[in-house]
Parts: sequence; C-alpha cells; structure tokens
Amino acid sequence: MENKLQTAINFASDNVAGVSPAILEAIAACNAGAATPYGGDEYTARVERQFCELFERDVSVFLVPTGTAANSLCLSVMSPPWGTIFCHPGSHINNDECGAPEFYTNGAKLIAIDGPAAKIDAEKLASASKLKRGDVHATQPHAVSITQATEIGSVYTLEEISTISKVCKESSMRLHMDGARFANALVSLDCTPAEMTWKAGVDALSFGATKNGVLGAEAIILFDQNLAAEMGYRRKRAGHLFSKMRFLSAQMDAYLQDELWLKNAQHANTMAQRLANGLRQISCIELIGNTQSNIIFCRLPKTMTTALLSEGYVFLHDRWEAGVARFVTSFSSTAAEVDQLLASMTCIHTQQKKEFA
Amino acid sequence: MENKLQTAINFASDNVAGVSPAILEAIAACNAGAATPYGGDEYTARVERQFCELFERDVSVFLVPTGTAANSLCLSVMSPPWGTIFCHPGSHINNDECGAPEFYTNGAKLIAIDGPAAKIDAEKLASASKLKRGDVHATQPHAVSITQATEIGSVYTLEEISTISKVCKESSMRLHMDGARFANALVSLDCTPAEMTWKAGVDALSFGATKNGVLGAEAIILFDQNLAAEMGYRRKRAGHLFSKMRFLSAQMDAYLQDELWLKNAQHANTMAQRLANGLRQISCIELIGNTQSNIIFCRLPKTMTTALLSEGYVFLHDRWEAGVARFVTSFSSTAAEVDQLLASMTCIHTQQKKEFA
Amino acid sequence: MENKLQTAINFASDNVAGVSPAILEAIAACNAGAATPYGGDEYTARVERQFCELFERDVSVFLVPTGTAANSLCLSVMSPPWGTIFCHPGSHINNDECGAPEFYTNGAKLIAIDGPAAKIDAEKLASASKLKRGDVHATQPHAVSITQATEIGSVYTLEEISTISKVCKESSMRLHMDGARFANALVSLDCTPAEMTWKAGVDALSFGATKNGVLGAEAIILFDQNLAAEMGYRRKRAGHLFSKMRFLSAQMDAYLQDELWLKNAQHANTMAQRLANGLRQISCIELIGNTQSNIIFCRLPKTMTTALLSEGYVFLHDRWEAGVARFVTSFSSTAAEVDQLLASMTCIHTQQKKEFA
Amino acid sequence: MENKLQTAINFASDNVAGVSPAILEAIAACNAGAATPYGGDEYTARVERQFCELFERDVSVFLVPTGTAANSLCLSVMSPPWGTIFCHPGSHINNDECGAPEFYTNGAKLIAIDGPAAKIDAEKLASASKLKRGDVHATQPHAVSITQATEIGSVYTLEEISTISKVCKESSMRLHMDGARFANALVSLDCTPAEMTWKAGVDALSFGATKNGVLGAEAIILFDQNLAAEMGYRRKRAGHLFSKMRFLSAQMDAYLQDELWLKNAQHANTMAQRLANGLRQISCIELIGNTQSNIIFCRLPKTMTTALLSEGYVFLHDRWEAGVARFVTSFSSTAAEVDQLLASMTCIHTQQKKEFA
Repeated sequence: MENKLQTAINFASDNVAGVSPAILEAIAACNAGAATPYGGDEYTARVERQFCELFERDVSVFLVPTGTAANSLCLSVMSPPWGTIFCHPGSHINNDECGAPEFYTNGAKLIAIDGPAAKIDAEKLASASKLKRGDVHATQPHAVSITQATEIGSVYTLEEISTISKVCKESSMRLHMDGARFANALVSLDCTPAEMTWKAGVDALSFGATKNGVLGAEAIILFDQNLAAEMGYRRKRAGHLFSKMRFLSAQMDAYLQDELWLKNAQHANTMAQRLANGLRQISCIELIGNTQSNIIFCRLPKTMTTALLSEGYVFLHDRWEAGVARFVTSFSSTAAEVDQLLASMTCIHTQQKKEFA
Repeated sequence: MENKLQTAINFASDNVAGVSPAILEAIAACNAGAATPYGGDEYTARVERQFCELFERDVSVFLVPTGTAANSLCLSVMSPPWGTIFCHPGSHINNDECGAPEFYTNGAKLIAIDGPAAKIDAEKLASASKLKRGDVHATQPHAVSITQATEIGSVYTLEEISTISKVCKESSMRLHMDGARFANALVSLDCTPAEMTWKAGVDALSFGATKNGVLGAEAIILFDQNLAAEMGYRRKRAGHLFSKMRFLSAQMDAYLQDELWLKNAQHANTMAQRLANGLRQISCIELIGNTQSNIIFCRLPKTMTTALLSEGYVFLHDRWEAGVARFVTSFSSTAAEVDQLLASMTCIHTQQKKEFA
Repeated sequence: MENKLQTAINFASDNVAGVSPAILEAIAACNAGAATPYGGDEYTARVERQFCELFERDVSVFLVPTGTAANSLCLSVMSPPWGTIFCHPGSHINNDECGAPEFYTNGAKLIAIDGPAAKIDAEKLASASKLKRGDVHATQPHAVSITQATEIGSVYTLEEISTISKVCKESSMRLHMDGARFANALVSLDCTPAEMTWKAGVDALSFGATKNGVLGAEAIILFDQNLAAEMGYRRKRAGHLFSKMRFLSAQMDAYLQDELWLKNAQHANTMAQRLANGLRQISCIELIGNTQSNIIFCRLPKTMTTALLSEGYVFLHDRWEAGVARFVTSFSSTAAEVDQLLASMTCIHTQQKKEFA
Repeated sequence: MENKLQTAINFASDNVAGVSPAILEAIAACNAGAATPYGGDEYTARVERQFCELFERDVSVFLVPTGTAANSLCLSVMSPPWGTIFCHPGSHINNDECGAPEFYTNGAKLIAIDGPAAKIDAEKLASASKLKRGDVHATQPHAVSITQATEIGSVYTLEEISTISKVCKESSMRLHMDGARFANALVSLDCTPAEMTWKAGVDALSFGATKNGVLGAEAIILFDQNLAAEMGYRRKRAGHLFSKMRFLSAQMDAYLQDELWLKNAQHANTMAQRLANGLRQISCIELIGNTQSNIIFCRLPKTMTTALLSEGYVFLHDRWEAGVARFVTSFSSTAAEVDQLLASMTCIHTQQKKEFA
C-alpha cells in the first residue's frame, strides 16, 4: 500500500513519525522461538536491569503500550479516589486523555495550578496544597504531576523540579513526571536520568519512548517501591499486560542500547533549533518562548498559514489561540525538510510583502 | 540476545509463540514516512473495510493491543454498572483478567452459568435471566459473554450460539463473543465469520489475533452500531488508543491478507489433532473431551508429567485439577515437535511399565 | 443530655438548626403499624403526587437523605464517565462534596465556568461547550449544574436560567439545578416552582429540604423522564434507598403541607434582610453583594470578629478570604437573635472607635 | 393520613415495623437549639463513647443511614478494586444490594463460598483463599464477609467465627461482619458484643439498628484502626455524611440506652420461638432449620399460603423455593399477632383436612 502522506512534510507531532530502524530490527530479532508470556521472558528481565543501571538504583519497571496508560497507572497508585492531583492547566493528563486519570484513580480530582511556560508555579502549588487538609468535605492533596518536557516544549530546570518536590514532601504528596518527551528534556538539560528524576524528588515516572522512535512502548518507572506492589494488578486489570511482552521489551531494549534514545532526542532538538533559528529571520513570524526541546510555537500571519497548508505542509494551527501554529520535530525530521519549510516561508513572506506593497 | 527457551518444545500456550513473518514484514513496510496518528491513517481505514467485507456487512472496528482490553471494552458498552453479565464459570473474563470487566463496567456483576464442555447451558441461562427483573435490589441482566473457542478448546455449534442468542433477545440482553481463538473455532466449524457471529445473534466480538500469529493486536467488532458511539471515548480513556495506530492496523491487515489468519489457525488445529491422535495410542494417558480446536486437556500419570518436564517440555499441569495437563498448539508448532513429544511419551510410558512390571 | 450550644446564637449555617415541629410530628404520626418497605408505602405515593401538583406536570421523584446524594445521583444520570459537567468554581459539587460527583459518575470531569455573584456566565459556558466536540481525546460536554440559591446567597433570575438552558440545548447538554436552598430562592424570586425549573429548561433538580427545617430528606426531581429509568438502581446501589422509607416521605409530606416550606424560607430570608439592614448602619462593616436569600457575606474588622467570637456568637469567617465573614439565617433564627447580634456589633464598634480615638 | 396496612398482621420483614417510641422521643428531644453539623455535636461524641464501652475497647464509629451503605463502606476499606471478597452465596451483599459492594470498592469481586445454614464453610474458604495468590491475572483475596444473624436467621457460633477468622489471618484477609441483625444474634448466643466481634477476630462490623426499632441509622464499627483513616472521606464522598448528624446519633444513643436494643431483639426472638413452637404443632407445615433469631422458614401447602394471604396476613413466599415461606418477627410483633396467625393456620389446616377427607 502506498502512503500518500509519505511525501508531505509533516510537523504536526512527533507521533506522526515512524519507528527507528533499530527498533524494527529488535522486534524481528526477538521473534525466534517460544518465550514465557506476560513478562517472564529474558528481554523483559534485561530491560528491568537496564533501567536500574540507567537510573543508578533499584527501580520497578512496568511496560505499557501508551503514554496515557503510563500516566494514568502512575497516578492511580499515587492518589486514592478522594485525592487531589495537581497539574498544570495545559497538561496532557488534564486536556488530552479523555479523563483517563479520573477513570484509573476511580474519580480523583485534577486541580490545575497555573504558571509560566506551561510549568507549575511552586508557590501557588504550596498554597493550594495547604487548603482544607483533613476536611472530609474536600478531596485531599496526594500527588503532583509535572510534564518534562512540557506540552509547549519548555523544560523544568533541576532546581525547579527540586523546588516542587520540596513542596510535595512538605504536604505528603507524591511527585509524578509525565516524561512523554523525557529524552528531549534530558538532552536539553544535559544531565543524568537520575538527576532529573529521583535525585530531584520524583517518585514515579512515565518514561516515554513512542514519540521518540519507538513503535508503541512506554515504561512506568517507580522510584518509590511502595507504589510497586499493586501496579501489576492494576496493569493487568486495565488490559495493559501484553501476553507477548517480549515484543514490548525488545523495543525498549533497542531504544536504550547504544544511546539510541539520546541520539534520537538530540536530533529532534537540533532540528527544532534549526527551525527556530530560521524563523527568527522571517520578520512576519513571531516565535513564542524559547526552544528548549522539539516543539516550537509561533504566530503566523493567516495568509502564511493558508499558503503553507496549500503547499502541503502539515502542522497544527489555531488550536490553542487564533494565529498560533505549532511545529514539532522528531528523530525522523531531516535538515532538508526544515530548510524546505523555511524556504517556503521566506518565499511566501516575500511574495505577500510585494502584494501588500 | 540468545533465547534459552528457543530450543525447548513449548506447548504451554499459544501466546508463547512468536509472530508470523508476514506480520513482521507488514510492520516494517508501513514504517515509511509520516502518518496521521490515532487511526487517521490509511492502514486503519483499510482494516475497517476488510472487516466489513469479511463480515459481509457494516461493522464498527476498534483496534486494541490485548484481548483483556477488547473483552472489557466490549462489555463496558453492553452493561451498565448495575448490570449482570452472564458467563461460564471457566471463562477468561471471570478468571483470568484480574477483574478487568468490573473495572471497565464500573462494577457490573459477572454471574457464572455452568454447562458442559465449558459452554453456557442455554436453559440455565434462560432461568437465571428471568430472576428479579426490575427489582432495584438486584443487578439486572444486560449481557451474556461466550468464548469461541472456549478456554478448554471446545467450540459452540452455530445452533448453540443461536439458542443462546434467542435467550438474550427474550430478555433484552446483548451477546458478546470472546474470540481470542476466533479463527481456531471458525476453521473447526468450517463456516463463515458472518454465520458464527451476527447471523447467529452476536452483538459484539473480541476478534482475537495475538494468539494466532500477531504481535499484539485485537479487533473489537461491533455489529450493533448503537454500541459504537461511546467506544472511541472509552478506548481513549483506557489508554488503548495508539498514537502510531498504523502499526496495529498493519498487523491486522497482514493477518487478514491471503487468509493468513485461517491458515495459521488451520495449522494449529491440525497439530492438535495430530497430537490427540497420538495420545490416544498411549494407554496410560486419558484424553478429556474432543479436540475441536488447538487445546488438548488430558490426564497424565504423575510420573509421566515429571519425566516430560525433566526432558524440557513446557506445558501447564495440575492447575485445573491434579493430574490434568494442558497442551496448546499454535501456528508455529511443527509436526516434528508434536511427534517428538509423542515419542517421548511413548518411551516414558514403556519404560515406566517395565519398572512397575 | 443538655446541649451547650443551645444557648449560643449560631449563624454558622442553616444546617446547625434543628427541625420544624411539624416535621417531627409527622415522623411520629407515621409510626403506627407496618408499612411496605423501600417506598412501597402510602406516604411515598402521596409525596410523589404532591410533587407532580407542585410542579404542574408529571415528575419522577426519588427521596434521598442528603444533598450530596441528590446532586451526585442527578449528575450520574446526566453525564457518562467521559462527560464534562460545567459548574461554577464556587459550587458545592466542585468544592464541598469530596469528589462525590466524580465517584457517582465514575470519573466525569467538572469544569468550572466563572461568573459574577457565584453564577455561571452564559457566554463563557457557550464558548467552553463548543470546544473539542467529538474529539476522543477530550471529555465531552454533557451537563451543566447551577446552584439556586447560590453558595453565596445570590439568586439566578428566571431569564438567567433560561439563557443557560438555551446554551445547554444548543450543545445537547442537560441542565441540573442544585436546589439545596430551593425554597429560599423561590420566595426571593416570587415565582412558581415550575417557572424556576422545567419551564426555564431545568432537566433535573436536587430539591433541598434539610437546610430549611427538615431532619434529613431531599428529593431528586426528574423532569426528563428518560433519566428516571436507571435512577432506582443507582440509588439502591449507592445505599440511599431507605427500608423504612415512610419516615423520609413523612418528612417531605409535612414539609410541603400548608406551605411550611415556603413559610420557613420566607422567614429565613426576612431574618437575613433584617440583619443586612442592620449591618448597613455599622460603618466599619462592608456588606458584600445583595442579600437575595438567607446568606450574608460581609467584611468585618479583625477586632470585631474576635470580639463577637469571644461573646459566643458562632459564624464562619476567614475561610473564603481574610476578613470576610458569613452569616446564615434559617427558619429557626429569631428577630431577637438578629437584633442581639446587631446590638453587640454596634457596641463593639463604638467601643473600638473610642479606643482608637 | 390513615395507614391501611396498620390493621394487617405483617410478618414480611423486620423492616416493615415502625420505630421504638424511645427512639422517636430521642429525636424530638435533641431538636432544641443549634448543633455543630456533620458529627461535631455532643450526641455523636456520646455515641462514640458508648460504642467504646459496649465493645470494651477503642473503636472507630461512623454512622450511616442504611445497612447497604454500612456494608459497602466497610468493604471499600477492606479490599482494593482488584480484591476478592468472599461471602456466602445467600448473603445480602451478594444478592440484595444491586452491586453496591462493587460500586464502593470500584470493582472488587465477590466470590461465593457455600456452606450449610447460610454460613460460610471454613474449609472451603481456606481452599479458595489459597488459589492464585500473587498471580496478577486473578483478583486477590482481601476480605471475608459473614452475616450475623444470617439471611435465614441462623447464627454463627463464637467458635465458627473464630475458625473463619483464623482462615482470614492465615491468608492476610480481613473479616467483616454484616450485623444487620446483630442484636438478634447476640441475644441468641447470650455473649458480649466484644466476644462476638473483635475477640473472635472481626475487623469491621456493620452494626445494624434499623431492623430492630430504629428509624434509619446503622453504625460502622472499625476494630482495625488502620481502616479508619480513609472512612471519613469515603462516607462524605458517598453522600452518607449527615449535616444534621445529631438526629442519627440521637437514634443510636437511645437505641443503646437502657439496653433497648437487647430488649427489642429479645422480644423479636421470643416471638419467633413462640411462632416456631406453634408451627411444630401443625402437621402440614414443615419448619426448615432451627429458629435461632427472628426469622422462620417453613414449607406451607399451597392452599395454606393462599388461604393466609386471603385472610390478609402479609409474608414472603415462593421467593427462594416453591412452597417455602418466610416469617420475620420484630420488636413490634405481639404475642397476640403470633397466636392469631397460628390460630388461623390451625383452622385452615383442619378445614382443608376435612375437605380432603
């Protein structure tokens, strides 16, 4: 079957990309022979060891196929049904999962704490977490979820994570990190996985991989081992325990091997920087925020948007705010694609200036 | 990584098998270029058309990665939280999903209706479905779930399905078919998919593929289109909507192409028949039930079980009843493996007879 | 047992009051003999008829003991688990029920729509209800809940209710009214129960009674009969179906007889007006908002608050905002109590002025 | 309103009875003045002390209006959503609560363990509780619920409770007692409340009162204080926290005062014995089981049932089994009523014998 979209240049999301060749090879390679189902295989054991090494400590690992599953399962062991889960108003768990956290937690309440650059303001969080403690009429603070990198591509500094973690500890809340773009944030900060997580106070992590070159595999990483006991039951009960688990594990195994995950993320981030640098040269386009990972938000003239779409470029626009467009790069974005987009933009800009002159 | 189990002969389950080569090729083939995420791609559209053709009518199709997800999501649109779902006591939804149906339905009640050969007795079902109708103190009959082929490998005849469906209609219940081994049942009955489902009164089907050579993909098939409206939300909310959906769809596409699914199932069934025929020749082994699909239950002398295990054969035993063993064949089982097992059994039998003589 | 609080003047809430004598008499009067349990009794039948007359049409009536139960059960038949329920940020369902709506709806999402005087802004509601319709990644608008009278004592006009109802109809949402203080709003508007509910587009009503002189009984009134079919199961399943239902019904019966409910509410509102009028005369106190029912918010000097508390007055303060106090009158508040409070305030004010002079 | 049923002799259930006069007096007596809502009042504090004295130790007490609420809330703190709760097939939680335990536990699985006289067989329980421990595919044993007195009026001996409790402890399960007819069982065994509960290993008790002369109040008694922390939130979230709590507490207070609860239960049991003794004299009636509390099951000739109904007697029949009738006595049953029923039966029996002679 031919893929019409194949020829279009697509910056709609990092999930429009395919899969890194090494991942596909790993899937094929693990196919030989029989394997114990449900995670009793060697690949899964190896992935568990890899994560322990990666995070420089014992961690509990549970593979699942989607980020929504990873986030919701994490939250379900961090908050009882009468718990409050604090998150940013723009967070994926709040906006884009059709109430999955509420489903998995059996009705916990997400309360949005605003803050600049899609990051939770720690002071506001501290205030909110102190309200109505012990009052049976109110849901009780149990968890905080931060997204790293955020939904707009910004990145929490290690200090910012630690500050939020301190607020959590003061109020006996647990800290979850939605790491759908964990690798993009990590290479942006140039720190270790340990530093960006448990050393900064994170209790549970959705370790994303799918957006960064994997077919469909994410890892729930629990640093607080107390949370692990019930996770196996919750995962099975949600239908997220694969019988042929080796094929999830082989994906993650290949993703972690030879720093593929870091290379993919570094490439995506570099492409985003390349695009940002180019956009700064086009006077009718206004970049929004810094470009810290692989997502760029900018303001485009309506005529520019229309022209780009008619040329076949794929990207999201006018979804968050009129006139605002989003471009996302991925491991598979090429410099040629970025340059072609920039060339088209420059050309459109020049032509439109002439028309209005 | 070498796979130790690779060399062992494994009849533990059809989920210990790997993936059909054509499926792996399809996954690789669909990787080129970008694709609209979440099922907006061409592969998904094609799979939907294929299922309409296969079932000779319009159907709603929702791909999910696991059978537990397929079953639970089906049941969640067939029963309200205060509903009763009738199933066989030995059914997967009742025993092996850690309460997933209860989770997805928000607390519906599974009530077991017994019957020979792991099949629901229609008369008992009819009696049970008439109790306490309209009584607010009791959960109300809303759905019946049958497994085809059953957990012990038996197969409902078309007439048996129709009889149960008639009971359903008389009591305004909907009928679900857990088709984790749908293909094995279909080739056993030698009928059409339409005949085994909606023509016999089935409203919703978990169309299994994973156990029959697919990596991890199952299709929810809704014949009752009224059930479809909410399924998209339920699937997303459960974390079962894949962003890179084309890779699920490509698996299912390849599975349905060139009757791979039927060939795989036919092979597995044939291997089971070959094994059954051999077992009948060994006097110390007692076959249980007929061999209608790819599962064989039999009674083995304890010494036989021990000897087989020590020779490295992998199979489940003493789990359902002391002395009872289960052998499951799959698309990847070979005649040589079956024959080797039979040879070992015969040899052990002969040797043990001598010892006791 | 003597009741120490008996002698204190208590404006903390209308739920600190006891029960109207006629209600107690009705409870005692219905005690004679046996009665069919679970609502099969004559008192319950009579209450159902009374509500049909009161609302000038057929309605479905379900008695429950608490307002939280009434609200949550109403919402549970108006929104699926993946539904959005719009409400004011200050609403009881959002703040004071420990997530009961989320529990009863199995995880629906409450989204707050702001507006002045604790009333939802219809335009903001209209905008919010149009977002992401049909997008499986987002919970879908299904219901709107307004509180009449609101949590701060303000009252939606009939026109305001109709405007919100129109927004609901345009977006296929249902409209719920939390009428914990229904009677207080009704006498304030001086309209009929029909006008304030279904004639203005309300689909389901929590008809409050407990705060207005009843021991513990609220009525779920369903104008949309489609919502009624499942309510009986939901109520039982939640443990809110009384076996000795006649004692709930007798309370409601007496509440509705001889306009006791309207008289009680009129009295409470009149006492609030009396208090408001007095507060306006004390220069250091600032009334907040109009006094439309039986709740008054005002700003008190800290010294005034301290002095009143030390004199034994009971009222809530510094809970919503520093310096803000709330006074709630009820059917049992007396003019003498109001006057005594005002006299104390005046005295404290005068004395403090002297001290600062 | 006159009560037509008043004149009929009603043995349908103990919940058709009204309320003990002392309970009504207590409700009226506590009405004076204001009281802190939601259980902050003196009556509630006193009831808590009373229960500590009654059970000779510290207990946590949570009042709720119905038995279904008490049972479900107890179970919700004893079992996670993936837990198994063992109960007798004939138990109220399994049959008569429309899935309330499943709702409150968010989907735990009730597994029925049979046994004679409506009592769980401890050996079968022990076997069942050992299956699939730690297997993520199966719900895990967490709680056992026994009913004392049972739904057919039988009573567990202290030894039987201890034996079940021992099984619980061996499998780390908690033990719940549904004491809807706690008092009837207690006077039957002639032991202390402590002996029948925590001394025998009970962790949580639904202390019934409504069926024994109270209007609508039950107490959740937690002996395992670890279970108490979350109960307040769960009760509120379920809408079972009364604002005017004093009126629940006053009922329970009066119920416990002067041994009213024991006197009421003793009377009901005595009336049942009187009825049983009489039934034994009528040759066409066959008593089923011993009469240990206030419930009698017996076999009646169809003609007898018809004749009694036509004379206006109210009782349940042909509900459990054709030809089986149930008679339930209560605190308000009188010796005259029992004797009148027996006289009618004797008369019908004599007449019918003549007709057939």
